[in-house]
Amino acid sequence: MRITVLAGGVGAARFLNGLCRVADPAGVSVVCNVGDDFAWHGLHVSPDIDTVIYTLAGLEGEQGWGHRGDSFAMLDELEALGEEPWFRIGDRDVATHLWRSERLRGGEPLSAVTAELARRRGLRCRVLPVTDDAHPTIVATPDGELSFQDYFVRGRASATVTGLRFPGAADARPAPGVIEAVAEADAVIVAPSNPFVSIDPLLAVPGVREALEGARGARAAVSPIVGGEAVKGPAAAIMRSLGHEVSALGVARLYAGLIDVFVLDEVDAALADAVEALGLRTVVCETMMTSAERREALARRVLEAAT
Amino acid sequence: MRITVLAGGVGAARFLNGLCRVADPAGVSVVCNVGDDFAWHGLHVSPDIDTVIYTLAGLEGEQGWGHRGDSFAMLDELEALGEEPWFRIGDRDVATHLWRSERLRGGEPLSAVTAELARRRGLRCRVLPVTDDAHPTIVATPDGELSFQDYFVRGRASATVTGLRFPGAADARPAPGVIEAVAEADAVIVAPSNPFVSIDPLLAVPGVREALEGARGARAAVSPIVGGEAVKGPAAAIMRSLGHEVSALGVARLYAGLIDVFVLDEVDAALADAVEALGLRTVVCETMMTSAERREALARRVLEAAT
Repeated sequence: MRITVLAGGVGAARFLNGLCRVADPAGVSVVCNVGDDFAWHGLHVSPDIDTVIYTLAGLEGEQGWGHRGDSFAMLDELEALGEEPWFRIGDRDVATHLWRSERLRGGEPLSAVTAELARRRGLRCRVLPVTDDAHPTIVATPDGELSFQDYFVRGRASATVTGLRFPGAADARPAPGVIEAVAEADAVIVAPSNPFVSIDPLLAVPGVREALEGARGARAAVSPIVGGEAVKGPAAAIMRSLGHEVSALGVARLYAGLIDVFVLDEVDAALADAVEALGLRTVVCETMMTSAERREALARRVLEAAT
Repeated sequence: MRITVLAGGVGAARFLNGLCRVADPAGVSVVCNVGDDFAWHGLHVSPDIDTVIYTLAGLEGEQGWGHRGDSFAMLDELEALGEEPWFRIGDRDVATHLWRSERLRGGEPLSAVTAELARRRGLRCRVLPVTDDAHPTIVATPDGELSFQDYFVRGRASATVTGLRFPGAADARPAPGVIEAVAEADAVIVAPSNPFVSIDPLLAVPGVREALEGARGARAAVSPIVGGEAVKGPAAAIMRSLGHEVSALGVARLYAGLIDVFVLDEVDAALADAVEALGLRTVVCETMMTSAERREALARRVLEAAT
């Protein structure tokens, strides 16, 4: 059974963690957002890819990102050299970025480097960056445009988001295997990720939205909004500032026409009828992935509904 | 008083440590070997420059190189990724290489990056790479040629050295200030460094040997060979395999014609007459820099003789 997951960061990684326990990982393809990628002191950092790989390797940090139990001697030393340590790369984590950056500079595409990294971390699923091309997310705020990490980490996602832009999208080509993974899978699952800064940049790569629209398999999405709040991150604030209803229903409206099944939390059961009125089937279940058991149970429910 | 020191790694750094305590560091210029520089996972590592800067900043590691009390989490993680950790870069040390590499990739020359690094480390002396150009030391052995670090670190300096080659020398231009520092100083001191892999590469940069030959100030060298052995590193083995006498006298013969004063250890006092027969003045004193006091005493003796 071939399952493809459209993935952002922590929420997607946790969902995949459960999925790869209840389905054969060899059939799972993860299409990862690269809109958060950036150059950190000359190293290529791919936050979403790393969160997925670390989590599936059982190495994720306590907050969901970075490497578990990491130390920060390098960062302290950069600070001693006068650099502002606004993005906290740990000592173990930097090995990943060094390893990746050396290969990218040697001319290997991100997709090949990511596949090899996943293999070396012992993963059996496929991890695909949506594109090998530069495809950054730019955040518009009342004070001007910011790169994603300037908005998200440096600015702690405190700026009001008035728009999002993907200036590389028009020229970005889907990475090898991405279109097939979406178009030909038995099921395509939109992970519980931020619709605007995780999923939209995937759909913005030419061919990906069309592949999802014409997908052979069933398409499901898990709401990242539960009880009117984002489980993690700035999704709720961004929905609000862009004029959307901050609810699972608001998310369902964003995905209507692209998916068949919408998965929402039990606390949002009252919204199910309105979601179905959008032409979507609904699954109402526990979606908070606070334990391995819950992650597996959610993955199982989503798979049942999508196959 | 302007003092210029031709410098390799640990021995030079220790000598400079004493010198900068007995002379005004603002008058001291250090011309550093870059023949050991290499790319480590895409980062530009300058071992001799770093040893000098760390030591003068009081941050040198217990072995004389790297950052004091460093940890190795990053290296452990690279090993977990399947990389052989033959060159041991610590977590704090990597901050230096990241910092440097980012600037070099941005187009700044090594001399400017080094000057700024020295400033940020609180140094008051000038640290000059001999050249901003690529100028690697290549080591010939019975089994073929090796890069310097493949010979020195990976191979633990165990190969027999049959020759040394500086393929970048002909095209290397002295970094800004190097020629003036040598030609116009009140004293030029050849540090107790390896004559073949630290000092020769400096002299191989077009104009440097000529500047030393025609230097305005007195020129002194401190023997890196004491009692027939190298204080540190492979100098004795290289001298032997290249057919030179392994002694302070052997070193003096290498430098005859380029310097005025030769400083040798008390244990080699019996060689002083033979060194003077080469046309050099001699200073016989304790040269083992095993304490701050001894480093200062040596620097004072060399300065007295050279000014």
